[in-house]
Parts: sequence; C-alpha cells; structure tokens
Amino acid sequence: MKLTEGGVCAAKGFTANGIHCGVRPNKTKKDLALIVSERLASAAAVYTTNKVFGAPITVTKKHLENGRAKACVCNSGIANTCCSGGVETAERICEAAAKVIGCGADDIIIASTGVIGQPLDPAPIEKGLPALAAGLNANGSDDAAAGIMTTDTVKKEIAVEFELGGKTCRMGGIAKGSGMIHPDMATMLVFITCDAAISPEMLKKALSADVKNTFNMISVDGDTSTNDMVTVLCNGCAGNAEITGENGDYEVFMKALNTVTVHLCRMIAADGEGATKLLECKVSGAKTGDDAKKVAKSVVCSSLLKAAMFGADANWGRVLCAAGYSGADIDVNKIDVSFVSEAGEVAVCKNGCGIGFSEEHAKKVLSEKEIDIVIALNDGECDSTAWGCDLTYDYVKINGDYRT
Amino acid sequence: MKLTEGGVCAAKGFTANGIHCGVRPNKTKKDLALIVSERLASAAAVYTTNKVFGAPITVTKKHLENGRAKACVCNSGIANTCCSGGVETAERICEAAAKVIGCGADDIIIASTGVIGQPLDPAPIEKGLPALAAGLNANGSDDAAAGIMTTDTVKKEIAVEFELGGKTCRMGGIAKGSGMIHPDMATMLVFITCDAAISPEMLKKALSADVKNTFNMISVDGDTSTNDMVTVLCNGCAGNAEITGENGDYEVFMKALNTVTVHLCRMIAADGEGATKLLECKVSGAKTGDDAKKVAKSVVCSSLLKAAMFGADANWGRVLCAAGYSGADIDVNKIDVSFVSEAGEVAVCKNGCGIGFSEEHAKKVLSEKEIDIVIALNDGECDSTAWGCDLTYDYVKINGDYRT
Repeated sequence: MKLTEGGVCAAKGFTANGIHCGVRPNKTKKDLALIVSERLASAAAVYTTNKVFGAPITVTKKHLENGRAKACVCNSGIANTCCSGGVETAERICEAAAKVIGCGADDIIIASTGVIGQPLDPAPIEKGLPALAAGLNANGSDDAAAGIMTTDTVKKEIAVEFELGGKTCRMGGIAKGSGMIHPDMATMLVFITCDAAISPEMLKKALSADVKNTFNMISVDGDTSTNDMVTVLCNGCAGNAEITGENGDYEVFMKALNTVTVHLCRMIAADGEGATKLLECKVSGAKTGDDAKKVAKSVVCSSLLKAAMFGADANWGRVLCAAGYSGADIDVNKIDVSFVSEAGEVAVCKNGCGIGFSEEHAKKVLSEKEIDIVIALNDGECDSTAWGCDLTYDYVKINGDYRT
Repeated sequence: MKLTEGGVCAAKGFTANGIHCGVRPNKTKKDLALIVSERLASAAAVYTTNKVFGAPITVTKKHLENGRAKACVCNSGIANTCCSGGVETAERICEAAAKVIGCGADDIIIASTGVIGQPLDPAPIEKGLPALAAGLNANGSDDAAAGIMTTDTVKKEIAVEFELGGKTCRMGGIAKGSGMIHPDMATMLVFITCDAAISPEMLKKALSADVKNTFNMISVDGDTSTNDMVTVLCNGCAGNAEITGENGDYEVFMKALNTVTVHLCRMIAADGEGATKLLECKVSGAKTGDDAKKVAKSVVCSSLLKAAMFGADANWGRVLCAAGYSGADIDVNKIDVSFVSEAGEVAVCKNGCGIGFSEEHAKKVLSEKEIDIVIALNDGECDSTAWGCDLTYDYVKINGDYRT
C-alpha cells in the first residue's frame, strides 16, 4: 500500500472538475463539483440514518439500485433538504448532468451540502454544467474537492496504489465535513474512486463493513447530518480480475479502502469546525467490539473533555465519566488512561484511580496538534478507535451565525 | 400552590447552614452545607446512571435502604469519585456529621461535587462540622445553597406552600448544577425538604415519577455526571394525615413536587456553564410520550442549535435535523416549528418545509433571555418539555481549564 497523488483522479479512467456556478453568492468560492468515470462503474453508497434526510439522498438511493454509476455531481451552499420540490430539483440536475456527460440520468450520483430549509434553484447548476464538463481533466481532483467544501478550512484528498493479481490499482478519495459531524452509517460527503474491478455486491459489502470502523467513529459535534453520504465508484480500468467473493484480492481491496477512509476520517476530525486539535481515542481490552466502540465514541463526543483538550488540561476524570455513561459494559476499577502526543506520554489513571503526574509535562503533551487518548479497559480482547476534535471559541463563533 | 420564601428551611422542622471549611483553597467560597430535620424523615433519592459514580452515592444508597434520613451533608470542590478509599472517606464524614447532630451515621445523606479523581481529605470537613452544626438556623437555606455551588453563578432555591387535609404544608429545594448536566435518572445535586407526612414508599414513587419529566429532561452539555443526585426529605411536621396511597393528597403532593422541580430545572438550565439564554423545547403531537421526550431532548442537546441560539440565528433546519436523529418515530412532512419569546413569535417551518419569515423579527425574538422552541409533530396526542441553554464562548472558557 503506497500513498500517491491525484485524489479522485488517481485511478485510471476518472476525471474531475470544480467551478463556481452561482449557488453561492460569493464568486470566489467553488460550489459545484463533477467526477466522471469513462466506463460505467460498480458503485455503492452509505447514507445518513437521520429520519430527516435530503432530497439528493432519495434520488441517489434510487439511482444506485442497480449498483452502477458513471458520475457524481455535488453542489455546496444549499443542502436541498426540508424544502418542497427538492426531489424534482435533484432529478432535474441529474438529467442536465447526464446530458453533458452522455449517459442516463440514473447513472448519476447526486449530493448537496449547505443550509437546510432553503430551496435549491437548479438554474445556475444547469447553466454551469456544460463548462464544468468541458473542463473535466485528470488533474481535477483539487477543484472538485474545493467545490464540495462548506466551512472546511482544508481540502481533503488522498490516493493509494496497490496490486491485485499483478495489476497496479489506484484508489483515491475526497471528502468534505466540518460541522454537523456525528455520522451514524456514513459521514458528510465522501467520494472515492478506484480502477479495480469488483462486483457491485462485493463493493457494497466492503463499504458497509469499513464505515462501521471509520466514518461512523468520527464526531465533531454530536449532530448527525441530514445529507451524509459516502460513495465509492470502481470502474475496472486497472484490468484486474473482477473481485466477486471474499478472496485474497478482496482483503487487499479492503485494506486499500481502509487506508483511504481512515485518512479522510482523520482529516475531517482535524478540520472540525473551530478545531485546533485532532483527538484520537484508542480503546483496548473491551469485552466486545461494540463496548470498545461505545467507549471510544462517547469520549470523543464529550463536550467537557473536548473543551479540556482545547485548554490542554489533563482533566482525565472527564474521560472516565464519558466511559461511564457510554452504555458499554465496563469495570471502572480496571481502567487505565493515558494521553500521548509527539511530546510524549502521560499516564493519569490506573485501575480507575488517579495517579500522580507532572502537570507541566501533561500540559506539554496536550499542547500538540494531535492527541491520543489511550484507554485500556483490561477486561477483554476487543479494541476500537474514534476520532474527534477539541471544542473551541471558534466552533461557537462559526455556528452562532452560520447562515449569514 | 403558592410560592413562598425560605428554600429548604421553608418547611417546618428543617434548619440549614453553609460554611467554608477548607476543601477549597479559596476562603471566600463556601464549600460545606448541612440540612437537618428535627424529626427522622421519610427520604428518597434518585441517582446518576453513570457506571462510574461517586463514593457518596454508594454510601447514600446504603443509608437510604430503610427510606429514612435526618440530615444531608454536602461538600463542593472535590467529587470524591475515582479515587481509592472514597467510600471510607464518605463514611467517616457521615459519622462525624451524625455525632454533631446526634443521630446514627446511617441517617445521613451524603453528597460531593467538584473535581473527579482527586482524593477528598475528610479532615477539614470533620474540623468544620461542629461550627456548621452550631450555626444551623431556620434562615440557613441561602448559606446551604452557596455551600454546594461549583461553577454556578446563581443560588438555586425555591419553596411552595400547599394544603393537605386542611393542614398547611411547605416544600422547598436547593440545587446546584451548571456543567456536566445531562442527567439520566437524576441531575446534579438537588435537596428538597417538605413537612408533609408521606410514607417512604409513596415518596419514592412520587420522586421517580417526577424526575422522568423534570431533571431527566435537562441538558447543558450532554455529559451525564458521576455524582448526580436528587433527594427529598419529608418530616411530617405539618401534621397532615400520612400519605400512604395514590389518593387526592398524593396528587396535591405531586403537584407541589413538580412545581419545585420544574423551577429548579429551569434555574439549572438557565445557569448552564457560560449560558446566556434558557431554551425550553415544547414538543406536542407525538405518537407516544417517549417519542415526544426524545425529540425535545435531542433538540436542546444539539450543539449546532445551541450555538445558533447564542447567535440569535433562526437556523430552524438544525431543529429538524435534531428531531430527525432523535430516534423518535416522526413524520417530517407534518412538522411545524416556531420560536417564541417575550418579543413575540416567529413561525419558521410548516409541514417540514421552510416558510417565509422576517429575519429582523426573528433576530428580535431570539435576542431575549428565554426562548421557547415550539415543535408540533401533528402525529399524535403526546407532549413533552425539555430545558437547555445556548452554547457560548464562555462554556469553552470555563471548561478549557476547570481544574485551575
């Protein structure tokens, strides 16, 4: 598994582009992205579990019933959610996109992100699509990544190279996600492309298995968005033998997928709204995988702990408190906790009780940009990792007046 | 039901006091409170459901097995939680309190609040108890309320007067609670006294029924504390016929209890750490009471909505989003939402879709100190109310460095 360049265009047969079309008033901000595969690709997606979900999700679910797609179109600025006529609008955009690409409307994956409750006018998107398609190119991942950003401060891209049956394959992804991040089934918007050949069934299986340990384990603010979606397109351009079962190639594919998704998870958490620090909570020694997940996620969701991490305060009682209300089956008298960063490690709790530590050293450890919260439950064999970020003044600032 | 003065000393036969004994370094901050009934009283309590819970809870649970108590002792500063020997420390304090009061150690309810994980030295408490007991008086509720405060900015007290069988009864309460407020079974520390006669069984029943709609419906930050406790003492000094079943007197008693608890809930939510606004989410038209509760609590827990309320931004999409991920059985196409305050009402959503409103008027409505978020699910007959507060810069500031 080797890191490479090119994001969603790293895999053979994919082009992308991003432009400003006018959904957003600010002309310097791209607001429309397109990713196209030269061949019809195996495609899978996972979606938000929020009962209030966006119109694009309704449409994409329908279009992916056959497990095939050729392109993804995504706008930022307006979420096309909680407004009448949203489904019709999403269908109209798909038809316009299909026309400029030259495929069926049901080969289009559509996504939107932005303000909930305002109607999305399809006109600027329809008007912008010909230029967007004309500009599709093999170095367009950056522009597409920019087109899907909302309050994100950095573009989120990655690509890896791996081998399947002697054939070089590539997989790359872009993501957006900064606030309203507490996915339950999927996160914000993630588009992954790959040139490996894999059947739609196996791709769906791979994605569903992976998100349980990756996108479902991030939290920025505990709010599960209405528009979360992770989608993968695999077009087979690498020439490998199609993966149709859980063989060795499937394992390699899963590893590639996990490398891409973990990287994007960390980027999304680190770029949480207002965040100054990435928190990675590593739980080991749980009775079951579910217990490990509950503890890890509860800790990265604790507003109190997140604020303490912002202040570089080793207030480990909040770690135990969050573990305690997580719903996991744990024995508090067995729990050890330490904080780890590039500046070193500080053990703060042994067998559920505080142990002496240097506050000065702890401050140093917690002043780094990436903090590991390491929890040994010492009560079983299962582990889990969750990602989050600190809670800062800027989170409040950003969300105190998002719409203006 | 008439409001009256005197807090926990409003009911006949109760005295209270609060002093600085030295648990906290800051000598201007009271850190020890005592409430005493002249007679052994019927007593009930509900506790945190956090699996990590404080030593005082272990001890109080044991002492309340017989449903009787005579006094409550409570320190602030250190929570006596997650430290070795905590139970022994709590027992020692109960013994010292029993000695100065003249009762058995198992007639004492004990509570602690403050930093988790630091050992509580009983010495200053033992040393302070004689003076604390000597100063017990019928106007001591204020001092007791001050003694249990941590990051609270206001004392939380209330008392009501009501009649049972021609006898005038009084019930009063004090509370502390500002952060780590997301009770599940009870909240922070609440001490309620009453001079009505009621059997321990009926008192337990009354309290358990009430907290489901009151203290379990507040959230400041989603963190369920390790030390939450609500306790009620009823000493029978009013001379009414003891309540031993669900008769008319029980109904009156329940109404008095609910008046006291709702008042304290509102005070706790309004004084949430860093809060500038009290949020009251009123949900109606749910299929079941549980659905109504889920929606109401999910909305007051949404960090995004809380930040929007701080910024007086009518971002109602976040209300629908939080309703959507609440787990309640709802039909988004039937939901109406409006914001109400002293400055008026602004309807923002009808049948799940946005409706036009004046942003200027909305800003005015949301700039008040108390905001009602009114949600009509239009899908049944059940309702519920939850209380919370806005998310502000000061919440982050207070919790970024709580321990120093």
